[in-house]
Amino acid sequence: MRDVVVTGVGMTRFGKFLDRGIRSLAEEAVRSALEDAGVEPAGVQIAFFSNAVGGLITGQEMIPGQAALRHTGVLGVPLFNVENACASASSAFHLAWMTVASGMNDVALAVGAEKLTHPDKTVSFRAIGTAVDLEQLHKLTATTEGDKGGGAPQDGQEKRSFFMDVYATMAREYMRSSGATVEDFAEVAVKNHLHGTLNPYAQYREAVTRQDVLASREIAGPLTLLMCSPIGDGAAAAVLCSRQAARRLEVRNPVYVRASVVVSGRDRDPDEETAVERAAERAYEAAGVAPSDLDVVEVHDAAAPAELMVYEELGLCGKGEGPGLLASGDTRLGGRQPVNPSGGLLSKGHPIGATGIGQIVEVVWQLRGQAGDRQVDGARIGLTENGGGFLGTDPAAMSVHLFSR
Amino acid sequence: MRDVVVTGVGMTRFGKFLDRGIRSLAEEAVRSALEDAGVEPAGVQIAFFSNAVGGLITGQEMIPGQAALRHTGVLGVPLFNVENACASASSAFHLAWMTVASGMNDVALAVGAEKLTHPDKTVSFRAIGTAVDLEQLHKLTATTEGDKGGGAPQDGQEKRSFFMDVYATMAREYMRSSGATVEDFAEVAVKNHLHGTLNPYAQYREAVTRQDVLASREIAGPLTLLMCSPIGDGAAAAVLCSRQAARRLEVRNPVYVRASVVVSGRDRDPDEETAVERAAERAYEAAGVAPSDLDVVEVHDAAAPAELMVYEELGLCGKGEGPGLLASGDTRLGGRQPVNPSGGLLSKGHPIGATGIGQIVEVVWQLRGQAGDRQVDGARIGLTENGGGFLGTDPAAMSVHLFSR
Repeated sequence: MRDVVVTGVGMTRFGKFLDRGIRSLAEEAVRSALEDAGVEPAGVQIAFFSNAVGGLITGQEMIPGQAALRHTGVLGVPLFNVENACASASSAFHLAWMTVASGMNDVALAVGAEKLTHPDKTVSFRAIGTAVDLEQLHKLTATTEGDKGGGAPQDGQEKRSFFMDVYATMAREYMRSSGATVEDFAEVAVKNHLHGTLNPYAQYREAVTRQDVLASREIAGPLTLLMCSPIGDGAAAAVLCSRQAARRLEVRNPVYVRASVVVSGRDRDPDEETAVERAAERAYEAAGVAPSDLDVVEVHDAAAPAELMVYEELGLCGKGEGPGLLASGDTRLGGRQPVNPSGGLLSKGHPIGATGIGQIVEVVWQLRGQAGDRQVDGARIGLTENGGGFLGTDPAAMSVHLFSR
Repeated sequence: MRDVVVTGVGMTRFGKFLDRGIRSLAEEAVRSALEDAGVEPAGVQIAFFSNAVGGLITGQEMIPGQAALRHTGVLGVPLFNVENACASASSAFHLAWMTVASGMNDVALAVGAEKLTHPDKTVSFRAIGTAVDLEQLHKLTATTEGDKGGGAPQDGQEKRSFFMDVYATMAREYMRSSGATVEDFAEVAVKNHLHGTLNPYAQYREAVTRQDVLASREIAGPLTLLMCSPIGDGAAAAVLCSRQAARRLEVRNPVYVRASVVVSGRDRDPDEETAVERAAERAYEAAGVAPSDLDVVEVHDAAAPAELMVYEELGLCGKGEGPGLLASGDTRLGGRQPVNPSGGLLSKGHPIGATGIGQIVEVVWQLRGQAGDRQVDGARIGLTENGGGFLGTDPAAMSVHLFSR
């Protein structure tokens, strides 16, 4: 297996761009990534494109990648549209990694793009709600069409959110098992929104207080609006090269993929390893890295409590110690192991088909020392964790990536 | 690069199964393929699932593979949902091949499943019509919602079919350049429907005459109903193994993947190579095989004229010689190089996300000598050609696979 180097990354700001289509977003991210890598479009040998719900939002149910990349100059090469719900982009990145690591190609492009905003917000909610086994959805919810959606409503509308219901259930269980309080969840949102103020690519850049979070509208108890990731649009892209190709491109600040892992969820017993644990274990083993080695971490905080659970699942702390780790300040910028310096999904945003590569872009910038005001000093090793969908007790897809400079 | 062996294949009959869901179809195909391979579900190391329009037909917009395979026992492994319109399944197969060929995994599963039938046929047509760059669709058609669909209407309803419009335009151009006549196109349908009578997995098993084809309802001149592939449901699956794993499984009749190629379409000049030509050229080169070496061929006859054009693009005959090759009888069962012994998309059917693996299943059966009444005697080398979507002048995705026993 060959070393794989991330030689270029690019992304749009995440946000609500009702006037921009997936193509426009994808083109901006691809242009930035290729320029960053010093790769001409014709130099790309294979491409993986991730988009999760474009069919429902824009009508482009099939070949979204070919449509989005049509004018970028990369077409002609093998191109695969890859979907794994909210883990679509890290899945596309994984396949790009696989083709380079295996020696099949020297230069691969991974692009994630999503448009979630729609003039009719129920369309967005309904789209997000399809990231579960539909049979399960039908069993668990007895609601009208308009109520099926997921994600956090961002206005005064009363919407039940199936997805946030799932997160709420997990949050309540976690409160029981760990002693976490709703205030702990609020502090996750406070931290990540504070980080987001430092990130020009974040959807939300306003600091919030614990009181703001607790006082914001309840979505699904104990979750309030500010504990839920927002609806948004965006794109992110990465160029992956073999070490030889990176040398040829005279890459000055190579970032190496130390491990790339994707697993699917399954109906597991409560005492079996979670999907995050399975993916992280494989990643640490492949990279020869321990949790304590991590300098910077981006996790899938689609809802605030998830960040605390993932601390434990990634081994950043012991079982039930998530709230304590947060309270210690270790995971804040300036702390020992900053988590979600980008602002995370809560503040940076969560355009689902772009999110996973968005996390990778952040970690690459951090490892290169290019993260501006939110730079983690001397970061050498970084991890991203990106989950997608729900399937019984686990996410439907889970991805963990490890990078080093 | 390692040799890759197809150790198991399975498929459902293609047809209209209004009472069956994608899960039921996929489970049948996967069970057959695993049984054929002698592989337990737990022996699968990675899976690729293709489905193109399930979101529009069933509502399962995301994680269709996880939902469909939930009870098969394969979950837990890396699983990727792959889409490339009508070439989705061959794209999934290609990625499964890549991971085994590259040494990343020893046992990979590729599954394609699609449900196109819907109580409201306009839903099916609309779904198929999304396999083009949507901007292009909006430019080229000035129709109502219900008119956007593709595929061939199978009842008396008057439907314009955008997809068949594209095929009709290509057909008229081909008539001009090659001298092909509408009778030639009819003869393709006659041949493939005759083959379909011999295939228990085919959607249509009735022989038709040239007169039947010419007299059937016009879809888009010169195409009549019987020159167009039908709307249908189905699933197909394949197990791919390294040579070492195949030996361990004591595979008695190994079929080798000699070449696996996927390319994307691009806006090309008329004098540039087509996507089929580009893909075929690479496949022949990788396999060290010439067109004259092929014993059996399955091509993407979504509309009858396409088969004649593909004869030329694959090098089975020279430019403009497609009609002559057909007339020679060489491509009929019993001829020198039978094409679409399965009945092809016209007769076997075209559940789009399953089609490409369906072709591969047929070729594997042919190379093993398991094709029953439609067996091509002594077939040793086979090719599949599977295209997906439209993008300007080319299919959006094109795949060519070569197999040998």
